[in-house]
Amino acid sequence: MSKFFSQIDQLSVTNQSLLCIGLDTDTHKIPQILKNDADPIFSFNREIIDSTADLVCCYKPQIAYYAANGAEQSLCKSIDYAQQKGIPVILDAKRGDIGATAKMYTAEAFDRYNADAVTINPYMGFDSVLPFLEYAEKGIFILCRTSNPGGSDLQNLRLDSGLLLYQHLASLAANQWNHNDNVGLVVGATREEEIAAVRKIVGNMSFLLPGVGAQGADVASMMQHGKGGGMIINSSRAIIYASNTSNFAQAARRVALETRATINQHR
Amino acid sequence: MSKFFSQIDQLSVTNQSLLCIGLDTDTHKIPQILKNDADPIFSFNREIIDSTADLVCCYKPQIAYYAANGAEQSLCKSIDYAQQKGIPVILDAKRGDIGATAKMYTAEAFDRYNADAVTINPYMGFDSVLPFLEYAEKGIFILCRTSNPGGSDLQNLRLDSGLLLYQHLASLAANQWNHNDNVGLVVGATREEEIAAVRKIVGNMSFLLPGVGAQGADVASMMQHGKGGGMIINSSRAIIYASNTSNFAQAARRVALETRATINQHR
Repeated sequence: MSKFFSQIDQLSVTNQSLLCIGLDTDTHKIPQILKNDADPIFSFNREIIDSTADLVCCYKPQIAYYAANGAEQSLCKSIDYAQQKGIPVILDAKRGDIGATAKMYTAEAFDRYNADAVTINPYMGFDSVLPFLEYAEKGIFILCRTSNPGGSDLQNLRLDSGLLLYQHLASLAANQWNHNDNVGLVVGATREEEIAAVRKIVGNMSFLLPGVGAQGADVASMMQHGKGGGMIINSSRAIIYASNTSNFAQAARRVALETRATINQHR
Repeated sequence: MSKFFSQIDQLSVTNQSLLCIGLDTDTHKIPQILKNDADPIFSFNREIIDSTADLVCCYKPQIAYYAANGAEQSLCKSIDYAQQKGIPVILDAKRGDIGATAKMYTAEAFDRYNADAVTINPYMGFDSVLPFLEYAEKGIFILCRTSNPGGSDLQNLRLDSGLLLYQHLASLAANQWNHNDNVGLVVGATREEEIAAVRKIVGNMSFLLPGVGAQGADVASMMQHGKGGGMIINSSRAIIYASNTSNFAQAARRVALETRATINQHR
């Protein structure tokens, strides 16, 4: 098991939590009170981390929000800050490209940002995934079945083997790509039947499950269908934007507490 | 037709060229002579652009090379420099994410970098593509059939409809996603039979064809199989790293001239 997944296992005990908070930090949604700070994005993330680090197993910044704003430095600082608090970080980047380019993307994720785990896109196949897999101590979450409406457009296509595309991908990930025991799968939390189908294929492989909170997943059903292996349950907007007043960090803590409790009811 | 594709059409006449040069600028491969410049990456790109701008229809920087090195400013300056010379730029980013996040990625590509076109990954389906499609004046190149070995892992799976996955994607792109007439497809230049299969499905839609040069595509066969619509033919390493001496820009020009001539022989 990779260092990342060991950390997750430990924190799921010490923090009694499977909750991942998504740091999708949007400059338009940062509370007014932070807007004159030198680095409002980092200030926001730091306050969210300070108020929730005892309630989570990891954080997951979505890199698009930082890239759109030229906020690479804020992202670096936020990742470092979470890690100083003992919490690992999944860089949600969903990269995917041919081998030589994928190596550059591993440098982005693991050298530049020092992320503990990353999300990647499998459309370009094994050699696009391999440079990531070689980082044996990291967590490599491959997109499998996503929670958005268009997720069905390709992922749910029926193959002539009888499998759906996302099921075939799950099988590839579990049986051919996981030689370093560091692979996890992204499976949308709103897709209960599909969570169960993937679990059946991949055994105890870890899932990263986005869709709790703003996207409205049924936590009880998700937990029931995902049983039998690791689960990291992500909520972003519902927690970090629980309030836009000066009490935003306390409001985030309150929703994080509720979300953790709901998850733990069904563990 | 979008402004981007109009520009390509014009340059294919005025520069007599379908050639796109890939600016996959690797700090380890920049000639020694530039290493003490204030911004070696930009210096390299500027010299390549100066020596080839009359021979191409566009440039295509691969963003991973810049992200790995924290060289966002060099990328901005390089794109701006090419555009000042009248040449449009495809940002090769292969992004793909749910709608709200995809919007952030459009801000990255079109607001921050002011790219004229972008490559995107379709695995997450229509709502991940839509924010890009709404930029009617840009070019949106969707990954269809890629030239790398692992490209077959998912893209060549046979569906129960009888189509291969990449063929189904081509049909979606042509028949459902191209309401702004700004969509093109990425099809590997080494995949001749597949180029022909995609052409049959999508009519005259433009292709971005990587794989000429270092990846060894047969230009005659590629041109033959792609006939009937737009073709933008990318070569990166074989041109920009033709030499690592102080004459690198002239060497790049020489290979670009040869590549353009080979392409034009078969137009």
